[in-house]
Amino acid sequence: MRDFSRGHEAMSVNTATLRAQWSLAEIIEGCARHGITAISPWRDQVAAYGLRQTVAHLRDAGITLSGYCRGGMFTATDKTQRALARDDNRRALDEAAALGSPCLVLVVGGLACHADQSFDKDLAGARRQVEDGIADIFDYARSLAMPLAIEPLHPMYAADRACINTLSQALDLCDRLDPMRSGALGVAVDVYHVWWDPMLAASILRAQKPRLLAFHVSDWLVPTRDVLNDRGMMGDGVIDIARIRGMVEDAGFCGYCEVEIFSELNWWRRPADEVLEVAIARHKTVV
Amino acid sequence: MRDFSRGHEAMSVNTATLRAQWSLAEIIEGCARHGITAISPWRDQVAAYGLRQTVAHLRDAGITLSGYCRGGMFTATDKTQRALARDDNRRALDEAAALGSPCLVLVVGGLACHADQSFDKDLAGARRQVEDGIADIFDYARSLAMPLAIEPLHPMYAADRACINTLSQALDLCDRLDPMRSGALGVAVDVYHVWWDPMLAASILRAQKPRLLAFHVSDWLVPTRDVLNDRGMMGDGVIDIARIRGMVEDAGFCGYCEVEIFSELNWWRRPADEVLEVAIARHKTVV
Repeated sequence: MRDFSRGHEAMSVNTATLRAQWSLAEIIEGCARHGITAISPWRDQVAAYGLRQTVAHLRDAGITLSGYCRGGMFTATDKTQRALARDDNRRALDEAAALGSPCLVLVVGGLACHADQSFDKDLAGARRQVEDGIADIFDYARSLAMPLAIEPLHPMYAADRACINTLSQALDLCDRLDPMRSGALGVAVDVYHVWWDPMLAASILRAQKPRLLAFHVSDWLVPTRDVLNDRGMMGDGVIDIARIRGMVEDAGFCGYCEVEIFSELNWWRRPADEVLEVAIARHKTVV
Repeated sequence: MRDFSRGHEAMSVNTATLRAQWSLAEIIEGCARHGITAISPWRDQVAAYGLRQTVAHLRDAGITLSGYCRGGMFTATDKTQRALARDDNRRALDEAAALGSPCLVLVVGGLACHADQSFDKDLAGARRQVEDGIADIFDYARSLAMPLAIEPLHPMYAADRACINTLSQALDLCDRLDPMRSGALGVAVDVYHVWWDPMLAASILRAQKPRLLAFHVSDWLVPTRDVLNDRGMMGDGVIDIARIRGMVEDAGFCGYCEVEIFSELNWWRRPADEVLEVAIARHKTVV
């Protein structure tokens, strides 16, 4: 296991962590100032700044990507909408390639929505749509040499965000679509989403390096006051983050540890420089 | 699959559903008035009313039990506390037997707490404590012929309520402690906790009748505004409840469907008679 206590070379910042305080340009500058060498930006932030400007700014600041957020959202009751999702995922792949990202992170979508915005209850059907959706863009992703990282989300997001909810389920899908384990399809392991999973250690072992494409950290707070935006800073919750990092590193992962904290009630209200300082300190001590 | 459209003989009411409005005595009276023949009471309500009074009142009202809530809470960093939990579980078993319950439902406890109330991060250790705790009371439960129903809780409760979070995990534990499938150890299937599980159908098939000891219904709302107390009335959320009932009945379950709705923001604020009327209507149409 890598020793993080002396530096934060392996730390990356998911830009959602600072989205309330800073623009993408400010995030790039801020990270450079704090000696952070990687970020994982969100598409809307890149679109707002401009793709070319982002590429140039990253290059000038000496900052690389640990991932690009995000593709996915494959589920829809309507065929036309699914085709639109496919086209949008191709654009996301183009952007990821232009930005030099090591992968495109996929949040696959939850239950399909009907025209009246009510949810379709066919969870198994939604999961089939996800598999079809990934299969649909897989050739294009391979043509760009851009790996697809399926991010299993916590089961509490199964209805409205992602119906892939365990690593085991994501890896089953990888086995079906990429049986040769080419590295073109894998998973993003986010401790917030997977820490509770009784199969976690076994699934990480099963994934191994070609399928471990990203590693995200934050913490699970007790109580959790908001289902979506109450993630904790590493060390403030109950997740044994270092133990999970040990598992992914034992399985061959040697990439960035990406800090991704959605925190309406705390960290989004603090000065961004302070958030980065605390994240760096925690990276050295509890990640 | 049983036809529920014409009556609600198979409906039970978990008394937490009406705890804000009615005392246990009022719940028994109210259920009798609405033609409901089974309830699943909570220990604190029974203690408040008195065990003997509860037994007598249930008998007079012609109401039986679908379960008794609850034993469990096995995890603690301190040995003395674990011994206290064991003793308390024995008392819960005595009460369940006195009440003629078909099982004692176990909410097993989350991460252990340190003396300063902070959580211990050893999730695997907590799970071992749960297994030891169940093993500790298993002989006593068998001596009373009182089956233990492990209730896997949704992963969002892994830290503070139950570190058994999937049916598969609960069934693994059953296999280890009761390999002969005697019926003395099984699971409570609550759709709110398990609906998202990609292994749901396979796990229910694997459980089969001797291990399917209880079936609870409510619904998953989108958005979920509170992690603990924002469950929906059947039909108001995204769970395909009838499909899951079909699975448990195909696996041999033929017991009560127990309505268990914790709803600070809605149903606990409505008149209890209205809650029961709506629950009965939904039992006939969406359960």
